[in-house]
Amino acid sequence: MIIYMINTFRTCQKTDSERSQKMIRIGIMGYGNLGRGVECALKQNPDTELVAVFTRRNPDDVKILTETAGVYKADEITKFRSEIDVLIICGGSSTDLPWQTPEYAAMFNVVDSFDTHAGIPEHFEKVDAAARNAGTTAVISAGWDPGMFSINRVYAESILPEGETYTFWGKGVSQGHSDAVRRIEGVLDARQYTIPVDSALAAVRSGSAPELSTREKHTRLVYVVAEDGADEQVITEEIVTMKNYFVDYDTTVKFIDEETMARDHSGIPHGGFVIRTGRTGLESENSHVVEYKLQLESNPEFTASVLVAVARATYRMSLEEMKGAKSILDIPPAMLSPKSPEVLRKSML
Amino acid sequence: MIIYMINTFRTCQKTDSERSQKMIRIGIMGYGNLGRGVECALKQNPDTELVAVFTRRNPDDVKILTETAGVYKADEITKFRSEIDVLIICGGSSTDLPWQTPEYAAMFNVVDSFDTHAGIPEHFEKVDAAARNAGTTAVISAGWDPGMFSINRVYAESILPEGETYTFWGKGVSQGHSDAVRRIEGVLDARQYTIPVDSALAAVRSGSAPELSTREKHTRLVYVVAEDGADEQVITEEIVTMKNYFVDYDTTVKFIDEETMARDHSGIPHGGFVIRTGRTGLESENSHVVEYKLQLESNPEFTASVLVAVARATYRMSLEEMKGAKSILDIPPAMLSPKSPEVLRKSML
Repeated sequence: MIIYMINTFRTCQKTDSERSQKMIRIGIMGYGNLGRGVECALKQNPDTELVAVFTRRNPDDVKILTETAGVYKADEITKFRSEIDVLIICGGSSTDLPWQTPEYAAMFNVVDSFDTHAGIPEHFEKVDAAARNAGTTAVISAGWDPGMFSINRVYAESILPEGETYTFWGKGVSQGHSDAVRRIEGVLDARQYTIPVDSALAAVRSGSAPELSTREKHTRLVYVVAEDGADEQVITEEIVTMKNYFVDYDTTVKFIDEETMARDHSGIPHGGFVIRTGRTGLESENSHVVEYKLQLESNPEFTASVLVAVARATYRMSLEEMKGAKSILDIPPAMLSPKSPEVLRKSML
Repeated sequence: MIIYMINTFRTCQKTDSERSQKMIRIGIMGYGNLGRGVECALKQNPDTELVAVFTRRNPDDVKILTETAGVYKADEITKFRSEIDVLIICGGSSTDLPWQTPEYAAMFNVVDSFDTHAGIPEHFEKVDAAARNAGTTAVISAGWDPGMFSINRVYAESILPEGETYTFWGKGVSQGHSDAVRRIEGVLDARQYTIPVDSALAAVRSGSAPELSTREKHTRLVYVVAEDGADEQVITEEIVTMKNYFVDYDTTVKFIDEETMARDHSGIPHGGFVIRTGRTGLESENSHVVEYKLQLESNPEFTASVLVAVARATYRMSLEEMKGAKSILDIPPAMLSPKSPEVLRKSML
């Protein structure tokens, strides 16, 4: 690892001395699963350093993993304008990011993982206005979906204009669906897995461009810890008929005890597939399959890893005066890498 | 398809009227499998139009598929400086592209598919000098490897710095290996398939980061049409012991007749896998698998489809004064798409 660092930095020095001599100073806003994941990811990226974590909790109650960084109250962030190159905002998409990202983009280069697909255009506009006004660079919706899946949809559709794109999710934990089940009376704990249907994946990969209903693409599997004496039949019925969440899917409900839940279902795995099939040739005679697949043992840590690579690109874009809001679709792949363009061409192209 | 065009162009008009009103005028240099593939791909991209095909053959002997385009001798290209926005150079990497791309980059925005990995840094330098001097934009090494595979290597390594990247090729036809077998005495025709080893793929996907020898990753399968009376044993021995081509692989040789060769092996399929496995978390406790897979019925047509999407980006980069040599690693994904940034954010992010 040390040899790799030296090589990378030496090469960088030849082409961009400022970039190589300076560590990218990172702040983290919000210290939940995602914020902790960002902190861990920074340790794997030797050109970045964590300066500060900002929290809405009492800073004294928040123990972080990086000795050289401090923990501060969220509203103290205004004092850090000259200390932080990029702020990674680790709030939630429903109530935090819609106001946080515009507010902090007015002070810092920022990255967020805003993932409410339908709200992206409005979020982009607000963040863009704030960032342009302040002369900062702000990348929204970095992660894997939106994020790496989006990139793969764009590449594959651009290369194969005649075709169909499919996205499958899972096998993985859906927090939203797990929470919905937990709100049912008699449920102590619940964990919901979204599972892609193998036969649907096979049909897509065959190039037959099938039309697939919601029910045909994914099944749902729910593990429930019920209260003593609760009626499992009633809980099951309430789950499988729940509108927006389960009624359109084939759902299996399994009742387990608390120990089993803790032992077998404490992880937050996820992943999925973006598959495009398309045809080329004068009479569309040749068929192609482009498939991108993620299998993640920790959804928040992988998302955090994307955020850190994107933070590097955000810093570089800010140096190149590329101001305003961006998405991961606007970032050249080379900008995400710690390696110089020369090294990338030599070793990765 | 017509509705899609109108929608796309309407949206484009709002943000960039010049781009939407103007078709991107394309020239093709070289009309073999790749050039024909580019011509077919252009028909699938309504914002592009083929202006001219240039050939070293007698233009009267070259019949193309586009009525509105002309065929010209290669040296007539100098007359087309103001007629062509991007020239797609479809020559071979060993003897054509090393001189063609610098020469034509001095006159046009160009795209090539230079795929001699070891020669990329030198090729880049030469093309960069020519393009900077002329104020043109030149993208080299667009295709799938180098190309889409390179992009995926860079993304996955940037996101997961602690990990290993593997590339597997096939199942697909290797022209170089097929040609090598055809040069053996007694061989009338040959077709060589490179095949990834399933157990090696499984070991990689498991996250165990195996060290794999050349022999463990791929096998080779050769179909041979032999001359009447040729000694199959001798031919087989010569193939499996051939240095640089076969000796490091487990190779199977099958003798077939000409009809079978023509019926079952006239296609040029290819593809492969880029897989990165990596770990995250404070103690690297979580494992992730990122996999990109291509299954292509026509290697040249898919490569051509990448070239056309890259030509669109090349034209846009030239409008934005991004001059000099670039690779696909320098291109933001959004630039490859005919859709506007707004539409991409709304529909693909």
